Amino acid sequence: MKHSIIMAFMGGQKDRFCTYFPNATPAEKIQAIGGIDGIDGVEIVYPFEIEDVVETGRLLKENGLGVAAVNANIKAGPQQQAGSSSVDDQAIRDDAVRIISEAMDIAAELGADKVTTCPLTDGYDYVLTADYVQSWENMVDSFRRAASHRDDINLYLEFKDQETRVNCFLNNTAKTICMIRDIGLPNVGVTLDIGHSLMAHESPAEGIALCHSSKVPYYIHTNDNNGRWDWDLIAGTYSLWRFLEVFVYLKKLGYDGWLTSDMSPIRLDRVSAFDQNLKFTQKAIELVDSLDIDELFNMMHQGQTLEILDLLRNKILR
Amino acid sequence: MKHSIIMAFMGGQKDRFCTYFPNATPAEKIQAIGGIDGIDGVEIVYPFEIEDVVETGRLLKENGLGVAAVNANIKAGPQQQAGSSSVDDQAIRDDAVRIISEAMDIAAELGADKVTTCPLTDGYDYVLTADYVQSWENMVDSFRRAASHRDDINLYLEFKDQETRVNCFLNNTAKTICMIRDIGLPNVGVTLDIGHSLMAHESPAEGIALCHSSKVPYYIHTNDNNGRWDWDLIAGTYSLWRFLEVFVYLKKLGYDGWLTSDMSPIRLDRVSAFDQNLKFTQKAIELVDSLDIDELFNMMHQGQTLEILDLLRNKILR
Amino acid sequence: MKHSIIMAFMGGQKDRFCTYFPNATPAEKIQAIGGIDGIDGVEIVYPFEIEDVVETGRLLKENGLGVAAVNANIKAGPQQQAGSSSVDDQAIRDDAVRIISEAMDIAAELGADKVTTCPLTDGYDYVLTADYVQSWENMVDSFRRAASHRDDINLYLEFKDQETRVNCFLNNTAKTICMIRDIGLPNVGVTLDIGHSLMAHESPAEGIALCHSSKVPYYIHTNDNNGRWDWDLIAGTYSLWRFLEVFVYLKKLGYDGWLTSDMSPIRLDRVSAFDQNLKFTQKAIELVDSLDIDELFNMMHQGQTLEILDLLRNKILR
Amino acid sequence: MKHSIIMAFMGGQKDRFCTYFPNATPAEKIQAIGGIDGIDGVEIVYPFEIEDVVETGRLLKENGLGVAAVNANIKAGPQQQAGSSSVDDQAIRDDAVRIISEAMDIAAELGADKVTTCPLTDGYDYVLTADYVQSWENMVDSFRRAASHRDDINLYLEFKDQETRVNCFLNNTAKTICMIRDIGLPNVGVTLDIGHSLMAHESPAEGIALCHSSKVPYYIHTNDNNGRWDWDLIAGTYSLWRFLEVFVYLKKLGYDGWLTSDMSPIRLDRVSAFDQNLKFTQKAIELVDSLDIDELFNMMHQGQTLEILDLLRNKILR
Repeated sequence: MKHSIIMAFMGGQKDRFCTYFPNATPAEKIQAIGGIDGIDGVEIVYPFEIEDVVETGRLLKENGLGVAAVNANIKAGPQQQAGSSSVDDQAIRDDAVRIISEAMDIAAELGADKVTTCPLTDGYDYVLTADYVQSWENMVDSFRRAASHRDDINLYLEFKDQETRVNCFLNNTAKTICMIRDIGLPNVGVTLDIGHSLMAHESPAEGIALCHSSKVPYYIHTNDNNGRWDWDLIAGTYSLWRFLEVFVYLKKLGYDGWLTSDMSPIRLDRVSAFDQNLKFTQKAIELVDSLDIDELFNMMHQGQTLEILDLLRNKILR
Repeated sequence: MKHSIIMAFMGGQKDRFCTYFPNATPAEKIQAIGGIDGIDGVEIVYPFEIEDVVETGRLLKENGLGVAAVNANIKAGPQQQAGSSSVDDQAIRDDAVRIISEAMDIAAELGADKVTTCPLTDGYDYVLTADYVQSWENMVDSFRRAASHRDDINLYLEFKDQETRVNCFLNNTAKTICMIRDIGLPNVGVTLDIGHSLMAHESPAEGIALCHSSKVPYYIHTNDNNGRWDWDLIAGTYSLWRFLEVFVYLKKLGYDGWLTSDMSPIRLDRVSAFDQNLKFTQKAIELVDSLDIDELFNMMHQGQTLEILDLLRNKILR
Repeated sequence: MKHSIIMAFMGGQKDRFCTYFPNATPAEKIQAIGGIDGIDGVEIVYPFEIEDVVETGRLLKENGLGVAAVNANIKAGPQQQAGSSSVDDQAIRDDAVRIISEAMDIAAELGADKVTTCPLTDGYDYVLTADYVQSWENMVDSFRRAASHRDDINLYLEFKDQETRVNCFLNNTAKTICMIRDIGLPNVGVTLDIGHSLMAHESPAEGIALCHSSKVPYYIHTNDNNGRWDWDLIAGTYSLWRFLEVFVYLKKLGYDGWLTSDMSPIRLDRVSAFDQNLKFTQKAIELVDSLDIDELFNMMHQGQTLEILDLLRNKILR
Repeated sequence: MKHSIIMAFMGGQKDRFCTYFPNATPAEKIQAIGGIDGIDGVEIVYPFEIEDVVETGRLLKENGLGVAAVNANIKAGPQQQAGSSSVDDQAIRDDAVRIISEAMDIAAELGADKVTTCPLTDGYDYVLTADYVQSWENMVDSFRRAASHRDDINLYLEFKDQETRVNCFLNNTAKTICMIRDIGLPNVGVTLDIGHSLMAHESPAEGIALCHSSKVPYYIHTNDNNGRWDWDLIAGTYSLWRFLEVFVYLKKLGYDGWLTSDMSPIRLDRVSAFDQNLKFTQKAIELVDSLDIDELFNMMHQGQTLEILDLLRNKILR
């Protein structure tokens, strides 16, 4: 597995009340991430972080970084704030499709195998103000058109149950799989952000297993939270056992893709914070490697719950 | 739409700390429910409430009650407490399949068109103690075998995200639809319990819409809660707008099935409590009938959020 | 009761992903709010919205607006992002005390009787990184010093359980009352934001009752949410019964203070959104006025739960 | 610190859907707990587990067990199901006071220093059906009368935010402290059940710190849950970092009382489950002992969040 960082977190951040860090150019972000030990690549946002793809490619290469995914942003434009992939307005939907399609071309040029997109403004704020049937149909149509742009690049849909809309339509793993089945194309998958999964009251590992059972490709964002909001905290600092479980399943199911940090370093030293996210991730991998996975699953099948807890306490804690 | 009551709530109830109401025989429950104005039928539990199906049928007829669904209980047996449809133990799974199959035969005899089952013990309590892939496969196999028993009776799966297991496998509408697609039979549907949907942080109406979009039949349980636990409260007393939204969608999508009370009357006078659940339900239907649904959806499509809120306040509140 | 609006919502807004509305000067905001029917005043932020208090006073008067409260912002400064009232750094704490004290003087000049402050950065993000005992002591000291500045102006503390910190120290009504008792001054009260109370899994009316029982003054912010995040939605659109309950208690306990809109109009027409928040609030007041409050409390004392639900359905819904 | 187990969990258990384990006599429970390594005592329920206090004392002594607390059950009687300490009915309140007072006498006879009580039926199920002001006054009166029975035995109040009522009045640490201050007696404290604290979205360690700052005695129940319901799971299996934080604060603040297992072993081998709860607790104590607590608090005061996370990962995980 290779480690990457969502580039945007190396620039200026904001929430409803404060702003954090100065803005930075894509070049500055790439250089800063290139200097972090153990990081193999980036997730880069299109269109905001890519003006000239050749120049971007050159900078990444110069800094020894690959591209885990191109993140097609279909939510931040003024016209997209009340929805983009789901709305009735054909022009807005076409624009979302265009952005994703261009991101797919750019992914190919940068040597990445996928685009990821997180339709956070596709949702609703008030009860009885959304046509769920039509919105679903619109999203299926938008993402089908986008994914059809080319079949050598995968499109991963990233679900989240709230933010920026009070209710996002694409809100958990299973619903994303329902959408992918309705889209009906083999190059559409799930971006499983561990924090989004926890916030949706899922077990992230169970989400991964469902993707596997459903024969849907998946891609992992690492972070953590308190189960209530997408705080993008350092991985493993709240939900340690759930985080370890993710790596047990990734190993069991043979995942060898990217692990991308979607951790927000506000109020922290950024480089050190990314380093901690990486170290917690590497520690989880090491700890899982120290377990006999076949034996663990054997114990599950025997219903040896207490024996497993005893084993975990002894093998994971000092 | 016809109104029914889950018969079990007319007998003895318990929670972790208290017991409520005396136990009652099925005959006593049927007679009591038969005396409630406006109730057209029951959801009856097999095997616990049906010893002699002919006698049961006679009693129901005598009391003017139809059967909304036979509820196949695959969770309460001593061997089912750690799972039934999902476990590796073939004998336990066979037993779950047998109970559901028998319930389907009984449904046919009683003139009902469906069996519903809620696999609440199919889940896990501790992280890293369940094989999600195998459990999923086991459940798909169990319910496929059960649904194959006969194709003239539908099998509805009722999801719930917690209780009695800390984590139930079948935990929201979308995951149930994923399971139904993996089962691959046309006579499998979703029992959408409004409270279970709310507890899973869904909009119940959005769940209904997803069933519709997925061409999966659905069946409705009415009740309410605080979004945290399946309290089985009187419908509309916490989530009024969400409850109204359900009836807007049921009308829009042409639902003409049963509305079954899954309301728990503990600490209340039972007959009056069922009456209140019915009256809140009827009120919701009336209020929705007073709206111009086509115009409402038209306003949604125009993005007239504030106009809708203004309309709802004027049309729903005195 | 008089109605006001938090002025800041008439200017530019942002969240983690988007920005909304252009920035506006305080004068522009005052003029815009002055044009909204039924609004009697504003909650104005110090220092950001007050440069010249005489000019501010003139503008307010010109637009027929009173001041519900001066909101002392002790969270947005770069040095305050990791805490202000709670931190060990004496200079930062002194600065928070200074801002509140100056806000009290300004409140007096503008004819307001109170300052409100919401210490949202006083908290922590990660487990085991905060000294709860020392932080509490620091907050008590800061707010005691601030409140001691003058005794003719009240200082109201506004609790919230998360945002911008993952965990805010002052997180519910009861804890705020504990803090007020430790401060030990009669001019300290609770700003009870209905949404913050709901998000903390309180009943807002119960919070109001606890303030009353504790002889602590309180001040009300109106809005609503889904119980999970401080969405600042239009009041009554999610938690209608809880919202009505607030007004039953305000009436019962004789509240005659301000009702301040803390509703965020992002993605909406602002003036119409504020109008809807006001109309839902006025409707709640009217509906409560249509009830016989003494009889309602009498029914509570008789344990007539079902009779109350029947009454509410008939008196509140059309 | 000494370890005990709530005796009731050695007998029959139930939830809404299933029953677990056969019933057992108090003598059988005491003998079974006496056989568990490392357990020093019990929390015993009055009146249900004590018929003859001399016999109970003899049995405990014979099995080498002390008494952490006598648990005064004021919730399970038929007349207590809609409230006991909070209700208007003087006879029901008197009965609650009587049970607690008798439990205090029994505690003294058994050599315990405290009674604990958890008023789980004092609450309400529906909005607008409870008089919060009167209920609070009633509870303060009931517990003041009970605590006044004798001043050599402490009365600890155990809060919980839901179950068996949808909303319990005494729902978090701070509110319990407010109640204790209104009671105004030095022998009233807080039973801080770690799971109840987590379910109330508190940090249990912060609750402990608030008791300390408020000069209120406290007593600890160990268990864990998913933050949504009082699952009474084995300690540390969900909220590991929060659990460790508890022991950091207990050490820092010099707690030397009992640690009582409030863990429910349903679906597990009971003796082994209690053993796992003990081992997770002992492991937490050992791990905290391996830390330099003074240095840790020093790092907190320096704002060294990332350094602390690095330290914790290295010192706690293998």
